[in-house]
Formats: sequence, C-alpha cells, structure tokens
Amino acid sequence: MKICHYRHSGDLGVKTRLGILDESAGIIIDPNFVWALNYQMEGRFNPYDRANKKLPSSLFEVLTLSDSPLDDLRDSLEKYNALKKAGNFKTTEGIPTFFKIDDESISLTKPLDRISTYRDFYAHEKHVAKGFAKRNEPIPSAWYEIPAYYKGPTHGFIGPEEEVLWPHYTNILDYELELGMVVGKEGINIKEKDAINHIFGFTILNDISARDIQKKEMAVRLGPAKGKDFCSIIGPVITTIDEFNNVEPDLLMTATINGEEWSRGQSGDSHFSFSQMIAHVSMDEWVLPADLFGSGTVGTGCGLEIDKWIQPGDEIELFVEGIGKLKNKIGNKKA
Amino acid sequence: MKICHYRHSGDLGVKTRLGILDESAGIIIDPNFVWALNYQMEGRFNPYDRANKKLPSSLFEVLTLSDSPLDDLRDSLEKYNALKKAGNFKTTEGIPTFFKIDDESISLTKPLDRISTYRDFYAHEKHVAKGFAKRNEPIPSAWYEIPAYYKGPTHGFIGPEEEVLWPHYTNILDYELELGMVVGKEGINIKEKDAINHIFGFTILNDISARDIQKKEMAVRLGPAKGKDFCSIIGPVITTIDEFNNVEPDLLMTATINGEEWSRGQSGDSHFSFSQMIAHVSMDEWVLPADLFGSGTVGTGCGLEIDKWIQPGDEIELFVEGIGKLKNKIGNKKA
Repeated sequence: MKICHYRHSGDLGVKTRLGILDESAGIIIDPNFVWALNYQMEGRFNPYDRANKKLPSSLFEVLTLSDSPLDDLRDSLEKYNALKKAGNFKTTEGIPTFFKIDDESISLTKPLDRISTYRDFYAHEKHVAKGFAKRNEPIPSAWYEIPAYYKGPTHGFIGPEEEVLWPHYTNILDYELELGMVVGKEGINIKEKDAINHIFGFTILNDISARDIQKKEMAVRLGPAKGKDFCSIIGPVITTIDEFNNVEPDLLMTATINGEEWSRGQSGDSHFSFSQMIAHVSMDEWVLPADLFGSGTVGTGCGLEIDKWIQPGDEIELFVEGIGKLKNKIGNKKA
Repeated sequence: MKICHYRHSGDLGVKTRLGILDESAGIIIDPNFVWALNYQMEGRFNPYDRANKKLPSSLFEVLTLSDSPLDDLRDSLEKYNALKKAGNFKTTEGIPTFFKIDDESISLTKPLDRISTYRDFYAHEKHVAKGFAKRNEPIPSAWYEIPAYYKGPTHGFIGPEEEVLWPHYTNILDYELELGMVVGKEGINIKEKDAINHIFGFTILNDISARDIQKKEMAVRLGPAKGKDFCSIIGPVITTIDEFNNVEPDLLMTATINGEEWSRGQSGDSHFSFSQMIAHVSMDEWVLPADLFGSGTVGTGCGLEIDKWIQPGDEIELFVEGIGKLKNKIGNKKA
C-alpha cells in the first residue's frame, strides 16, 4: 500500500485526513470513511464515531494505538473493495469513500501527520567522504563503528508541492536526497535480525539545509540546528514494507532540479542498514511508532557534493523507485 | 511560584498531577482540585469537568492552551487561599486541595509532564574550553558567534529521586550540572529584548552522559545521541520567572556526590543569555510552549572536567539557588 495524508478544502475549512493512494485507479481511498459507510450499511446508530475508533483518520494514531497497523489498513482496503463491488461509495450524508487525485478540493500533504522522534543518519560513505574532504580531514574511524545521527524538531516538516522556506539568515540553501523510514512498532533493545518487524514503510526525505550556518554549527561538534531545523520534506507517500517483500529494498534515487538530473544513487549503498540503525538506537532506549529515520544523503545527493546550488523559484524533484516523486518549489529569501 | 508535578499512588493506580509547592507550609497545592472545590462550593453541577477546563492537571496543557499560564496559576493560588480562609479543604467526595510533602502516597516527579522540543546548549566557556582542550584543539571561533545546541528526544526524561539508568553499552557515566529554562509562550523571530516574555521559569537539569560512546559520536560531528538520549533529569520544581523579578537570574549552582562537593559555578557565567538563545533559535522557526532549553554545563560542572567519575550506587545532588536540590541515585549497569 501507498499511505498518504491528504488535505481537503471544503465549507468547514481545511482538514487533513489519512488516505491510501491507488495510482492505477487515480484515486485516494479514505479508510476512515470506508468504515463509516460500512457501519452505516450494517445499520449501526453511530457509524462515524465507530469509524473513528476502528481506524482514526491519522497515521500517527493508527501507528501508536493499533495492535497491527498494517493489517488494519489492509482490512480497510478489502472493505473498500467489498463496498465497491456492491456499488456503495457514499454515506447517506454524501461522504465519499474515495476522491479522485485530480479533484480540486484535495491535495497530498506530508504522509505522516505527526512524528514521534526524528533521527537523521549519515550512512552513505560517498556523501560523508565528500563532507570530510572539504575540511581536509579523513572520515573519522568512529563513523565506521556506529551509525551516527542527529535529532531534529518535528514542527518544520512539510509535504509534497509545499513551498520551501528560504530563511532570512542564509545565503546558501541546499537539498538532500534521502530515504526515510517510518517505525511501525515500538521496541527497546531490538536485535538486528528482528528489526525488520518494526519498519512500517519508506518515504522520500528532502532534508533542506542552510550550508553557511550549518558549517559553523558542525565546527562546534554538536551537530546541525539552524542549518536544518527550519524545513524538512517527506512524501508523497509511505510505501509499506510488505510492498518490498518485507525486506529492506535497494532503490534507485534521483534528484532533478528544473528538469535536469543532478543526483543519482542507490539506497542499498548505505554503510548501515535501517535494521542496524534500529538495533543501535534501541539500545536501552525506546524506539517508538511514528519515529522517522533518515538514511543520510546518498552519494551525489546534494548540491554541496557536486558544487551546484539551488536558487529561489527552482523546482526540486526527488524520485525514489517504488515510492514516487516528491516535488517542491524553493521560496524567495525572507526579508 | 514553584511549579511541580507529583505522583499520587492510590486505589486507582498511579496518577501524575500538577502541583504548586509551598515549602514554608510543607505542602503541595493541587490547582486543579482547588478549582473543583471552588466550583462545588459555587453549587455547579459538574465541578470536576469545569476544573479540567479551567486548569488542566498538566503543565504541558496549561502552557500550550492557556492564554496566560502564569496568571492562571496565580489565580489558582489565590483561590486556594480564599478557600482556606473559609476553612474549605476538601470536596464532598473527599478530594483534598493540598497534600503534605511527607505524605507517603505522594512523591515529586519531573515538573514538566511533556516537553515540546528539547534543546541543550553549550554556553559556558569554561566547560567548552575543557572539552576542546582534551582534543588538543582551540575553541572554534564559531562557538563565540552563535549559541550552539543539539536536540534530544524527550522520552528519556525522569524526575527527582528516580534511579538513573546505567546503559549496558557504557563504562563511563557522568553527570552534568545545568540550568534548564522552560518556554511559556510561543513565538517566531523573537527579538532578544522581548525574549524574557517567553520564559516561564527555570529548573535544574542533570544531563546524564555516557562519555565513551559520546566521544565517538562527537568525532563524526553530528552531536551526541546514544551518549545522552537514554536519560536526562529535571526538577525538583520550575521556579517561575516572576520569582526572579522577570529578569534572567545569576544563580549559584553546585553538584554534590555522596555528600562531597565536586562542582560549583554561576549560571550568569554563560557566554549567551537565554534571551539570546531564544532570539537565535526562533529565527524563522517556532519556539513553542513547553520547549526546554538547557544552558550547557557550568564550569567544573561534570566529572569529565575534573576527572572524577561517578559509580553505581552514588547519590548525585544538584543544587541551584532559588530552585532547590535535585537528587538521584545512579543505578547498576544493566546486564
């Protein structure tokens, strides 16, 4: 399944709701409304309230409260198909079980509505080597020993098609092409061999970076802060792990700026697997549902590596095989 | 006011509730129960529900939803005093408006029940100088330019008297004596001169650190992760900014291990004020209510600086003038 959130604009304002993208049919199925219709057809008194308990319209809530998020989402899809077969698409009140993708009242937004903890790794050697070479330093031996990462706040996340903030305090903005992994089940002291069971799915992550201030921050060795925290992008969907036969996939990844390919890499080139990252992070520390892990930039996956720089108005398109295209436009520098 | 959360153990399990500590009277006033009693005395039908709306028993909720958290807490205290004057201390159902501190059914817990974003700075030059000297490096010039910080997850926080986890993967555990600042009001692009209005109060922060793995992490320059995230301690209370005449105070800070003083410093020695930190962080980024800022370790404020090392079973007592003593015992290394 390709899990998304979509923004619906209507008479009662803008709502963000959980969806399942069916690309071949060109629709977004709304699993919460599917259950509402189902309960209404069953003759229940309170179909909407029941639907909210059965499958809340929030991936964060499904991940943190469902005993089996993937099964619940699959069941919703089956229920949709059963209702469809019987010709049922709307509740008595006119609430539909799906929207067409090109419906003007809807648009995709970030596929995870709330992130528990965001950790961004640095696991692609090619990218890391370039970074240290710029400081005339070798890669520290520690990098090979442990999967290093920083944590970021989560309120700067945006989704597909949203404009990227160009902060007033930077002159050098950059994109970063990363694979994002969403945790589906909590755990502590998880073994590497079991870690796959904690992966819900994968998304595309564009870790927007302000290179001038980031350089200063990295010199102090506490990691990036103002260089990263103002904006990160995920989307367009989260492709669930079962679509990859429940193993970590090796995916082609590209970045295209204004139609020209700047970056190309493979997710499988990572020095550490997500399973290794989960095992490492969860040592005497809880990993939680709706945690987001970033892989780190793939080789050639940012302007800093290739010395090419994005500008206000540029269109950034990140592609990851099996997930889709994440497109965003760079905004103007704030006054 | 000294704001706390306290754990109440009773027939219905363990509840954590918001309190106001009155040290001279030796009691913790429960502002939510104060309002419940008040509404009951006023003859209202639903005093407990009204109290939950008026002043929820959660500092996180008060900070994020009240238009004026400090005023609401002050009003609660006035209401308590008015009820006390009239001899009213319990609802019809026997719910008390205060508990004695030595009541066996209660104990203090971390004073902020939920943290929005945790940022830990590195603002005391003496401490920073020691750290870089150990690497035979000068303090980077960037350190003087911008207040550097890392972000940490928030699920590792514990409170007073709780046992400190000694993770299985470290042999070198350390304490860090820091001043913590809790944000009371959101803002973006806050000016330094206005930043004081966004400070709710101050607490003591013990940033427990695993020095062996932290050293490796710092070498990679993404900042600390497994070296810090397993445990941080705040408490025993948050002293509100009005107790310091609405200016940033210069407070004596000490750390005492098994009764012996190891660390002594002044919060005012910081190279950056919290107002400067707020102004810096809030550049094109939201600072939120219930955000926690750590000052960074004061000079001499950790074992790494003075080459003295804590061991399992040790009693750590951090003292900060105007706030109190934060005591914790170091646990045994996990198998």
